[in-house]
Parts: sequence; C-alpha cells; structure tokens
Amino acid sequence: MKVKVVTRILEANDRIAEENRKRFREHNVLVINLMSAPGAGKTTLLEKTIRALDGALKIGVIEGDIAGTDDAERISGTGVPVVQINTGGACHLDANMISEVLPDVPLGELDVLIIENVGNLVCPAEFKVGEDMKVMLLSVTEGHDKPLKYPLMFRESSVMILNKIDLLDRLDVDIDKIRKDALSLNPSIKIFEVSGKTGEGISAWAEWLRGQKLP
Amino acid sequence: MKVKVVTRILEANDRIAEENRKRFREHNVLVINLMSAPGAGKTTLLEKTIRALDGALKIGVIEGDIAGTDDAERISGTGVPVVQINTGGACHLDANMISEVLPDVPLGELDVLIIENVGNLVCPAEFKVGEDMKVMLLSVTEGHDKPLKYPLMFRESSVMILNKIDLLDRLDVDIDKIRKDALSLNPSIKIFEVSGKTGEGISAWAEWLRGQKLP
Repeated sequence: MKVKVVTRILEANDRIAEENRKRFREHNVLVINLMSAPGAGKTTLLEKTIRALDGALKIGVIEGDIAGTDDAERISGTGVPVVQINTGGACHLDANMISEVLPDVPLGELDVLIIENVGNLVCPAEFKVGEDMKVMLLSVTEGHDKPLKYPLMFRESSVMILNKIDLLDRLDVDIDKIRKDALSLNPSIKIFEVSGKTGEGISAWAEWLRGQKLP
Repeated sequence: MKVKVVTRILEANDRIAEENRKRFREHNVLVINLMSAPGAGKTTLLEKTIRALDGALKIGVIEGDIAGTDDAERISGTGVPVVQINTGGACHLDANMISEVLPDVPLGELDVLIIENVGNLVCPAEFKVGEDMKVMLLSVTEGHDKPLKYPLMFRESSVMILNKIDLLDRLDVDIDKIRKDALSLNPSIKIFEVSGKTGEGISAWAEWLRGQKLP
C-alpha cells in the first residue's frame, strides 16, 4: 500500500522534472542538484566555489531548507542571484517546488544553476528536480561507513566531494575506504577532496565545473 | 493530494506506535528513540553508554539503517541483545517496522530499549515508534545553524546530546548559539556535551539515563 503511494508520487515528480529540464535546455543552463547530510558544508562550498570562479561562470542558486533563510543570505553575499525554498516539513526538494520558483530565477543570464537540496543523505536522492547531474558532499567527520549505509546517494551522484579534510589528522577516518566503497557502488563517480574552511582543493573542483559541457 | 496521503500514513503509524507502547509498558521497559544526522556518532555513543553503565541497566538495542549490519555488529560487541532493521530505502523507522521485530527483542529481560533510528534530521522526528522519549545527537561539526534549520527534531526531543566536543578547538562553531536556539524551540530540552572519542561527558549522560523513571 505505502509502496504504491510512493511510486505514484515519484512518477508524477519525474514528469515535472522532465518539464523543468526542458526549460533549462532552452536557456542552455547546466543544472546541478547538490546534496549532503546536514552540516556537511554545502553552503560554504558554494560560497567558496562562486568566489573561486570569480565570474568565469554565471552562477545562480536555489536554496532548499526545511526552514529559515540563512543559507540564501550567505549566498546572496557573493553577489549571485539566489532563491530560497522552505519545504515546511519535507525532507527533500521535489520537481514541483523547483517549477514553482523558476519564474524568480533569471535563467537567461546563467551558465550554471546550482540547487542546494535539504540536508539529508536519503530522500533527495530519490527525487529528480530536472538536474543534469547530482553532486554529493560528504564531510569526512561523518565517518567512513557512509557509502555502504546510504548507497542510493552514492550510486546516483556523478561527483562526490569529500569536505573538511583539514580535520583528517584528528579523526579516526579511513578516507581510502570511503573512496573504495563509493567507487564500488558507482565506478564512474568523480571524487574531489576539499576544505571549505581553508579553501584547499576548491580550485580543482571549480576548474572541473568550468570544463563541464551541456549534455 | 500529497499532504492527504502523508496524513493518512501518519495516523496509521500512530495507532501502531500506541500498540508498541502498550507492550513496552507491560514489560516495564523504558524506550528511547535515538535520532541524529548521518555520522553524528549514535552507535559510538551507544557503545560507550552501555560500557559506562556496566550492567547497571539491562539495555537492548534495535538498529535502524537503510542498508548494512555494521552498527548491529558493533553493538553486539558490547554483549547486549541487538536486532537490525534494514529499511530498504525508507529514511526513517516507523511503528510497523518496530512491531515486526519485537518478537526478536527479549523485552522481559530489559530495563531500557534504545531504538537507533536511520541517520536523518528530518523524517524520524515525524514518526512515533512507541517510544517514551526522543533523544537527539548533534555533532558540533555540523555547525551551529542546525536547531533553526531542523526545528521539529529539536522540538520533539527531550534530550539533546552535543557530540564530538573534542574537535571544538578546531571548529568555527558557537556552541552557546546551539544551546540558545535549541532552548528557544524547546525550553525543557535537557542538554549534554560529550565526546564519543575521548569518553568525556559520557558518564554524566549515562547516570542521568539510569535515574529515569518509567512514565
């Protein structure tokens, strides 16, 4: 019973995601669905990435949160256009929420739209929003068991960014196990290591993003 | 439409949760629903708590994960009875999942049953499983913005345990803001500070747990 309901919701969602995608294609905007557990550092990564790109890509951001506008205010500080979605209680963004805010996103002026999803390692991986690729951020403070415990997120993502590597010397975390398990779930996943705090690794990721072509 | 479906699921869940709760009362077992974001350290907290109590409370554990049995194996190493639930894709435990595994839990031999929920700061807060209290764990590495971004979890929890305080000297985290915002959402929330790694603060939390009475 419950499974049937979820299937129906997912089918409806995928139809709307496809409509969103057509709009993104009309405007030649590359769209990234950025996902992670709470507090992995998505917003800080975005701030640093936007500053590293320094206008080389015209970026726009949609911020997804259960509540609050802190993240949108932080992104706004970088000067790029940003729209905040508050999901109320929902644990993920869905295609319809994105569709509803698209009139407020200046697609004609953007190269890349980054959709920062609600902090959650489960639900966001199930709901397409019309993106070209999913990028996931894993803070190394979360431990090396995450790929095998949350496999869908790692299977669905084109890129895994390991964040907070500045803390590695103080953690009992086996980063090679994270890489190995993520690659076993998803052999083509692209992996970056960064520190949102020190900025280490941000330029490599930003350069890679700059080299991405529209599908 | 979607909201209606969710309401129906929640009502059905609450009925089963109430049945679970009656069974827990029949056996005089205090039941804790332990929740956190992925990688906040729930399993390590449990291992250390069980060892700190050293048999003073007879503990049993139900482990909830999307996939895998790592956590159940770790808890098993402490010598207490443990049952693993794999939710498949579901982002939280529900009352029916707990009901289904109760025949494998030796309720008659326990003082306290701890249900370690799926790592997620959103969905688990919405689904009662028959618990007497919700306890949430927040790793200070997740940042000080979490209470206002995930308010339901902080409102619903009787206890907030701040973990990984051994890393505070390396983080730009305002722990007073976490306390203040959590208390603004939930003035009666009890707060502990611990390090699962060094063991700091574990005995205070374990002693408090030992002093809890059945409702």
